[in-house]
Amino acid sequence: MNTTAYDVLKAQCSQEWDSTIHHRFVNELVSDTLPDEILRHYLIQDWQFSYDFYSLLGEAIAAADTMPAKVRLGQQMGFIANDENTYFHDRFVQFHVSDDELTAPELTPSSKGFRKLYRDAVDSHSYAQALAVLVVAESIYLDWAEESTAGGSRMPEKDQHIGWIDVHRGNDFSAWVQFLIDEFNRVADPQDSEVARHFTDAVHFELGFFDDAYIHE
Amino acid sequence: MNTTAYDVLKAQCSQEWDSTIHHRFVNELVSDTLPDEILRHYLIQDWQFSYDFYSLLGEAIAAADTMPAKVRLGQQMGFIANDENTYFHDRFVQFHVSDDELTAPELTPSSKGFRKLYRDAVDSHSYAQALAVLVVAESIYLDWAEESTAGGSRMPEKDQHIGWIDVHRGNDFSAWVQFLIDEFNRVADPQDSEVARHFTDAVHFELGFFDDAYIHE
Repeated sequence: MNTTAYDVLKAQCSQEWDSTIHHRFVNELVSDTLPDEILRHYLIQDWQFSYDFYSLLGEAIAAADTMPAKVRLGQQMGFIANDENTYFHDRFVQFHVSDDELTAPELTPSSKGFRKLYRDAVDSHSYAQALAVLVVAESIYLDWAEESTAGGSRMPEKDQHIGWIDVHRGNDFSAWVQFLIDEFNRVADPQDSEVARHFTDAVHFELGFFDDAYIHE
Repeated sequence: MNTTAYDVLKAQCSQEWDSTIHHRFVNELVSDTLPDEILRHYLIQDWQFSYDFYSLLGEAIAAADTMPAKVRLGQQMGFIANDENTYFHDRFVQFHVSDDELTAPELTPSSKGFRKLYRDAVDSHSYAQALAVLVVAESIYLDWAEESTAGGSRMPEKDQHIGWIDVHRGNDFSAWVQFLIDEFNRVADPQDSEVARHFTDAVHFELGFFDDAYIHE
């Protein structure tokens, strides 16, 4: 029986959720067969809406209604601005991505959709709507990273693949995702059409974002 | 000659600025003579508008208009949610501060003023106004912490005093403050009355906050 806002909404988009976490991109990443050109393109696109992800997490810190929530969100902001930021910069060096390539590249359809969705969530100044997008972004990544590696027991060998999995699985990341789920269930009403739309659109764009990684194939 | 927004506004409130960084509270903290009761009361009050400080820094991350700025603000958010948060919790244990005492204590006049000022800055959704308050909060603390300890060469011995100085001086904290000053000068117009009011009110409440530490004497 689905009783929480998170379970209810996740069930509503279970097909797209499953397609995302079992995506070809995931399988190739974990098996070390993902072409560098595909990963390179994916990371340049991801970096574009990282700008909006920072805005969204900042907005969530600003809008959160308890001190423990603000502190927890603030700690994760630090992790993203340090560990995850380092992963991006190491890859941009490894793949010879110039500053010019990072400045306003042509966005894929899903990147455009993501940017608008994130921007809408920021501008709503609603903690529940910010969480709807954040909880999808983080929990769908935890799901594929844990499931595809069998809980970290079957890892790839290349740095560029290990690194992207490492920042999306393990005890610390699982605890972070559980915090988001608990917060979402505490403040969100799944009957609220704006909350539901943010959640389901986020899942839709996650799947599209993996699809778009192969757009130039 | 004052040429930057920061220098112009700092000069306009130089008296209150100097009174703050040479305050009795600072002198007693650095010389290990600050009574625990005074520090205890000060930290309980400070913790109240820490809630608003997190909101403000989150809002600054959301409103910042460049990726490097978002990343730098995000890194400092992590430092505050980890190192500074630990200092607070260690003190609350040391001074036997109960959860009840942290929940809605009677606010001093300056705490009330700070909460309203910070809330106004958050609700403005203006990066310049958020920076006006942040740059005062952080640079006035750097100024007293560096000056009173002669650049860290004359430190107190008690943990509760060392800790509060350590999170407000040194190379990392100086670099953070310089970043805020540079950002403020980049985006703020000192002729903007709202920006000027946020800056000067913040200085006024910093001085009042040290004064209010002794309100029950």
